[in-house]
Amino acid sequence: MPDPTSARPVIQVIAYGPQSFEEQQVVDADSVQRFIGNFPVTWINVDGLGDADTIRRLGEILKLHPLALEDTVNVHQRPKVEQYADQLFIVLRMIHASASRDTEQVAMFLNEHFVITFQEQLPGDSFEPVRERIRTSRGVIRERGCDHLAYAIVDAIIDGFFPVLEVIGEEIEQLEEETLSASSPATIGRIHTVKHDLLTLRRAVWPAREAVHVLARDPTPLVSDETRIYLRDCYDHTIQLLDLLETYREIGSDLRDLYVSSVSNRMNEIMKVLTMISTIFIPLSFLVGVYGMNFDPDTSPYNMPELRWQYGYLMIWGVTAVIVLAMVFFFRHKGWIGQNVHRTERPA
Amino acid sequence: MPDPTSARPVIQVIAYGPQSFEEQQVVDADSVQRFIGNFPVTWINVDGLGDADTIRRLGEILKLHPLALEDTVNVHQRPKVEQYADQLFIVLRMIHASASRDTEQVAMFLNEHFVITFQEQLPGDSFEPVRERIRTSRGVIRERGCDHLAYAIVDAIIDGFFPVLEVIGEEIEQLEEETLSASSPATIGRIHTVKHDLLTLRRAVWPAREAVHVLARDPTPLVSDETRIYLRDCYDHTIQLLDLLETYREIGSDLRDLYVSSVSNRMNEIMKVLTMISTIFIPLSFLVGVYGMNFDPDTSPYNMPELRWQYGYLMIWGVTAVIVLAMVFFFRHKGWIGQNVHRTERPA
Amino acid sequence: MPDPTSARPVIQVIAYGPQSFEEQQVVDADSVQRFIGNFPVTWINVDGLGDADTIRRLGEILKLHPLALEDTVNVHQRPKVEQYADQLFIVLRMIHASASRDTEQVAMFLNEHFVITFQEQLPGDSFEPVRERIRTSRGVIRERGCDHLAYAIVDAIIDGFFPVLEVIGEEIEQLEEETLSASSPATIGRIHTVKHDLLTLRRAVWPAREAVHVLARDPTPLVSDETRIYLRDCYDHTIQLLDLLETYREIGSDLRDLYVSSVSNRMNEIMKVLTMISTIFIPLSFLVGVYGMNFDPDTSPYNMPELRWQYGYLMIWGVTAVIVLAMVFFFRHKGWIGQNVHRTERPA
Amino acid sequence: MPDPTSARPVIQVIAYGPQSFEEQQVVDADSVQRFIGNFPVTWINVDGLGDADTIRRLGEILKLHPLALEDTVNVHQRPKVEQYADQLFIVLRMIHASASRDTEQVAMFLNEHFVITFQEQLPGDSFEPVRERIRTSRGVIRERGCDHLAYAIVDAIIDGFFPVLEVIGEEIEQLEEETLSASSPATIGRIHTVKHDLLTLRRAVWPAREAVHVLARDPTPLVSDETRIYLRDCYDHTIQLLDLLETYREIGSDLRDLYVSSVSNRMNEIMKVLTMISTIFIPLSFLVGVYGMNFDPDTSPYNMPELRWQYGYLMIWGVTAVIVLAMVFFFRHKGWIGQNVHRTERPA
Amino acid sequence: MPDPTSARPVIQVIAYGPQSFEEQQVVDADSVQRFIGNFPVTWINVDGLGDADTIRRLGEILKLHPLALEDTVNVHQRPKVEQYADQLFIVLRMIHASASRDTEQVAMFLNEHFVITFQEQLPGDSFEPVRERIRTSRGVIRERGCDHLAYAIVDAIIDGFFPVLEVIGEEIEQLEEETLSASSPATIGRIHTVKHDLLTLRRAVWPAREAVHVLARDPTPLVSDETRIYLRDCYDHTIQLLDLLETYREIGSDLRDLYVSSVSNRMNEIMKVLTMISTIFIPLSFLVGVYGMNFDPDTSPYNMPELRWQYGYLMIWGVTAVIVLAMVFFFRHKGWIGQNVHRTERPA
Repeated sequence: MPDPTSARPVIQVIAYGPQSFEEQQVVDADSVQRFIGNFPVTWINVDGLGDADTIRRLGEILKLHPLALEDTVNVHQRPKVEQYADQLFIVLRMIHASASRDTEQVAMFLNEHFVITFQEQLPGDSFEPVRERIRTSRGVIRERGCDHLAYAIVDAIIDGFFPVLEVIGEEIEQLEEETLSASSPATIGRIHTVKHDLLTLRRAVWPAREAVHVLARDPTPLVSDETRIYLRDCYDHTIQLLDLLETYREIGSDLRDLYVSSVSNRMNEIMKVLTMISTIFIPLSFLVGVYGMNFDPDTSPYNMPELRWQYGYLMIWGVTAVIVLAMVFFFRHKGWIGQNVHRTERPA
Repeated sequence: MPDPTSARPVIQVIAYGPQSFEEQQVVDADSVQRFIGNFPVTWINVDGLGDADTIRRLGEILKLHPLALEDTVNVHQRPKVEQYADQLFIVLRMIHASASRDTEQVAMFLNEHFVITFQEQLPGDSFEPVRERIRTSRGVIRERGCDHLAYAIVDAIIDGFFPVLEVIGEEIEQLEEETLSASSPATIGRIHTVKHDLLTLRRAVWPAREAVHVLARDPTPLVSDETRIYLRDCYDHTIQLLDLLETYREIGSDLRDLYVSSVSNRMNEIMKVLTMISTIFIPLSFLVGVYGMNFDPDTSPYNMPELRWQYGYLMIWGVTAVIVLAMVFFFRHKGWIGQNVHRTERPA
Repeated sequence: MPDPTSARPVIQVIAYGPQSFEEQQVVDADSVQRFIGNFPVTWINVDGLGDADTIRRLGEILKLHPLALEDTVNVHQRPKVEQYADQLFIVLRMIHASASRDTEQVAMFLNEHFVITFQEQLPGDSFEPVRERIRTSRGVIRERGCDHLAYAIVDAIIDGFFPVLEVIGEEIEQLEEETLSASSPATIGRIHTVKHDLLTLRRAVWPAREAVHVLARDPTPLVSDETRIYLRDCYDHTIQLLDLLETYREIGSDLRDLYVSSVSNRMNEIMKVLTMISTIFIPLSFLVGVYGMNFDPDTSPYNMPELRWQYGYLMIWGVTAVIVLAMVFFFRHKGWIGQNVHRTERPA
Repeated sequence: MPDPTSARPVIQVIAYGPQSFEEQQVVDADSVQRFIGNFPVTWINVDGLGDADTIRRLGEILKLHPLALEDTVNVHQRPKVEQYADQLFIVLRMIHASASRDTEQVAMFLNEHFVITFQEQLPGDSFEPVRERIRTSRGVIRERGCDHLAYAIVDAIIDGFFPVLEVIGEEIEQLEEETLSASSPATIGRIHTVKHDLLTLRRAVWPAREAVHVLARDPTPLVSDETRIYLRDCYDHTIQLLDLLETYREIGSDLRDLYVSSVSNRMNEIMKVLTMISTIFIPLSFLVGVYGMNFDPDTSPYNMPELRWQYGYLMIWGVTAVIVLAMVFFFRHKGWIGQNVHRTERPA
Repeated sequence: MPDPTSARPVIQVIAYGPQSFEEQQVVDADSVQRFIGNFPVTWINVDGLGDADTIRRLGEILKLHPLALEDTVNVHQRPKVEQYADQLFIVLRMIHASASRDTEQVAMFLNEHFVITFQEQLPGDSFEPVRERIRTSRGVIRERGCDHLAYAIVDAIIDGFFPVLEVIGEEIEQLEEETLSASSPATIGRIHTVKHDLLTLRRAVWPAREAVHVLARDPTPLVSDETRIYLRDCYDHTIQLLDLLETYREIGSDLRDLYVSSVSNRMNEIMKVLTMISTIFIPLSFLVGVYGMNFDPDTSPYNMPELRWQYGYLMIWGVTAVIVLAMVFFFRHKGWIGQNVHRTERPA
């Protein structure tokens, strides 16, 4: 069922041919009838899915399959292509080129007279370059049919993912640097967020790959051979996206491992400091504790005669110095201090 | 063999056609014979598998294949579709939309005159919406044959998994937050439980995908082309389920890793406190230990003359202050205290 | 070559038809000739592979392929089905329903007149239910041919794995509980053993799946269509086995991760105790150390005048109390003590 | 669009046949027209993609497909082969045999009269051996057509990866040794870098495998059967590359695990030292602390009579010796000291 | 190009038929011409690839394809089978049944008159059993053609891996025991080495599987149907090898995890000792420190009156005993000491 929180749809119609062009924003579903068939290509873009009546009415006018229409308003579909008697039904997920990593569903019906797209949310979409090309008649889009328009829309949706991935790529590079030099507990949270985002994006792109593949290869009279060449190119872009996504995901996992290693290394560092301090001073404390005992030298010549030796006190400092030096030697032997010259340069 | 702890079966018969409808609860297996063939569609729902006689008798009356009947009462089958001479045998697993993550087996036989479903436990099933649609003649179900009923049942079973996954999704989000901010040893137990639940669900859904695929694609006169379109839609839902399950499983694994990292971070925090306290006070304790020694200043001018200096005691406090300051400087240099300003905002 | 430690084979012959039945234990290979062809089905079961002569002689009499016979005595074969001119050669691995997880090789030759099975070890096998069904003429086995007998044997071998898996399932559940509540160093050893056992079982079952699949699908006149339906059912069981095995393996891996987490948690707990004790008492020890110094208050008014204050000693206890309270407050702030109320209940 | 930071292209033309050979560097695109068709094979190599006009003009003259040309200037393509009406479009990634692990894109068009290659950056490429073979007429290259030239170029690009992998292989071996003997925090950073490099290389080689496979197998009149045999050989090299890459990646992951283990081992070592020192001296410090107490032996015979014993002080040293020996025995029992003779030799 | 460090080749010719047999070691390539065609089967074994001339000459005489010959001398090929006009080219990797895990390349050409094998290093190969069978005319080898000889050689190479794997299996078992009972830092190094060896072996065996599969299935007149049955058997052995390799690799990974767990457990053990000692003695040290303070009881009645109590000193020992008992109780409650009775026996 349609989500009641969705706002009322805005219906934009762009109808065109090699010579003709008309763009109009309509309010009720019936107004679109005037365009269909009177122009080589009519593109109806419905922004918002909140009004069940309008959508049902559009379905009746344009003879959209009820099952597909149900999928249109249920906005958690996986990207897919379905072929009905005389129309293609395409579902994809679109991303806004912003900092947010949320995707919205785009459902598209393609037939030889029109393309209708349904978007989930009101503000913003990836279609502006397509509209601009139609308005200014740039490229070949005005000369071609509905299938080329559908390709252009699909291509715009796919290309919308690249800037988002670029931002993620930069974030990963930054995290890589941070993890190697100065990671903090917040770093792992950010690594996790990036991995989560990549998972979300993959859920949107992975089935899109299959959908574009079906469009480019499966026999249907609705897609011309010429458009298929363009779709093949679009398919390549989807593969490239996935390739990038997978690479980032692998780096993300590596980063987590690297983070864990760096935390362990830091722990080692902390423990070394504690151990060195303790190892030096705990025996010394014992030593001075010995001569803090109150055995009475008067009672017995065996009771702490050192206390009355002329150089007794100096001897203590001497022993202290010997112990400290021995320990430093021991730590050096263990490799805990000094000589930490590590080769970090790359072999030529 | 039938599980002896199962209760006696309740047999509900719903027989209908475009014009006719009858619903009845019968006690003995023979009563169902009256319906078969007299209505376009007869749906027999058997709730409980405890009574071997009733089930054997139903098998005889409806000519169900013995091997399939054996699978029906053995409730640990994997979801599957099997084609016998003139009937389809479908096994699926159904989940109650409750907090429990247990599934029960549903076995279904489909033939052109009837659909018979066998459920494992007595209370509750996912079929109520289907029954309601038949009773109120909503949608197209009353106009269609047994294959459409079978589709409706399969669809109801599959859709029954979504609310459960939604609950798990919320739990995962909550765990994600908890792990990043304030995880406790109990958190890892809950993460493990969620992962275990997801594994159980996947075991139920994964083979269901294959079964629905077989129903939608494999040639059999028992399923009409029109119903296949509906089944294709149902197949999409199964894919969507699996997609969600896999995503949740990956997040679950990531959560575990995150948890381990957060435990390590906390350990680091604890060790830092210990090390700082020890590193400051252990040398100081040595220092004051030194002047607690009882070397006799009377015996020799070399024996602890500091004890009689005018400012000896103040000097000790001075040395203490110097050591503390040096240590604080050292900790600051190591990045153990202060300046912990971490960028956590996302790049625009 | 035959393993010399194997004992002398025991040859058991069961020959039967719908009306006839004979069971006999023979000593030399030649005795089996009497049965072949005189009964619809002759089942020769050879228990033990130690006597190369007997096995070679059996091979000659029954015209078993030399390569297959070589595989029979070499008991480390992977389960497989091989088709020779007029016989099928099947290798499977059988498990005794005991606590041990060892499997033994069963090699079987199938031809239209006889089935011959070779077992590795002497005591015990999974075939008793099959023998019993033949002896008592229960089910359809006496009416059917050699292919049905072969199916019954394969089915008995496959079903023999289920009780073993059930035991492992219970062990895993127990380990799960143990790891979450009170794991010990021995727990990880037991988890490892279970994982190792599952690996061994999978090596036996995974290729068996393929073998049963080949039997059920590949065209051969030796297997009738009716038997194929039964084999399909047996194939389902194999899939179910593998499904269970994989699930257990995944839980096993999760358990290991859980164990590592629980060890880390316990370490954290230990470190907290150490750090709290040290953090409270090390500064206090310093404090009392200060007043254990022997600076001479007689020499200078600056030398430890506190020692002669009226409430000096009480002041020390006061400072001690303040430090302890401050530390407790600090630990509470860090979340190391108190308020550990964790939600462990499941969301409704 | 072309990257504006790219420099102006350098166009090098090598035209040849069995008898003829001409090599020339041209400035404007139109100069290449003179060669096409007048030599059996014309190879145009464009170094740098900065000048959109030149590239567009070349596209017009040589009738290169616009979509392919777009891919040529957009330098982030995945390796691929695309077949247009009368030309093949091949994209690969080339690596300079230097320390850097960056790859540059090479786009190639193949038709029966010419091969045109577009390189990304100006200095250096892997083509010198091919040019040399043409100039000196070594091997069969001068006798063959454009397809053989294309093969030679593809082969040179693939072979260019081997020296880079060899360097990585040596680095991995060095890291392996370092991790086992004397790893430092920098080691994990280097392991991470190697893994990252391998990921980058795999992204370049993995799709190249597919591309070479398509060239060797897919039917196209542009590639002769003879050249296909050579391409099959080149395909083998790609497989070998990937095989090596995957092996190195697995070793890389193993190395990381090894590193984590070695860090844990070192931590254990540190903790052992700390624990041994603390366990020996903390009780001893308590002991000497006891006899540092100032209970007045004069007030009561129960107040520290030991202080006046004749051998009191010696007794303390005796107790100290006993405690130390007991601890050493305890540590030896725990396996913390001594007897660390580990078998590291391999079983024969 | 041929590796210049390789030694001069030793060429051994074995020519035979059902009745005839001749074995000779030749020096120059031309001497082999005498055998070809005069015996049903001629086997030329070239040991060492250092002499480019000899190999080129052999290529000319036997009409070996230049590309294949190039692969022969370049000893880093992956195992493969390639079909040329009238010969098969097979590359495999052979292992010496020694402690070393290095493999050497074997290249083999098969044609209806001869088999020629090229080995990499001089001493030792896996072919001795084959030579022995030919010399003694054991088995069917003398009756069969070149294809059977090729099979026998391939089979000998594959079987040569089993003893090596057996040694590794024993090593793994030993490591398993060691890790569970008494692992040392050296253990992880040995686990890593075994994993590395298994990776190397898999690189040799994995493509061999594919190669043997191609030999057994692909249609070529050079391999008779009878030999294919033998090759199928050899293929089974390869699968078995891989199966074993994969199992060992999984156990290897499990071992690593087990090792990490055991290190963590040992760390826990160490920390417990440290914590227990510190937790008991640090508060006690504070206590005795208190009574080591020099507050003057003469100045004020509040200044340490305990020092003059009659049972002051005994009270201290009493408090000490109470603290120790309380701590022991606390440790027991935490489960750090005593009651460590773990069930390690297996459920029946």
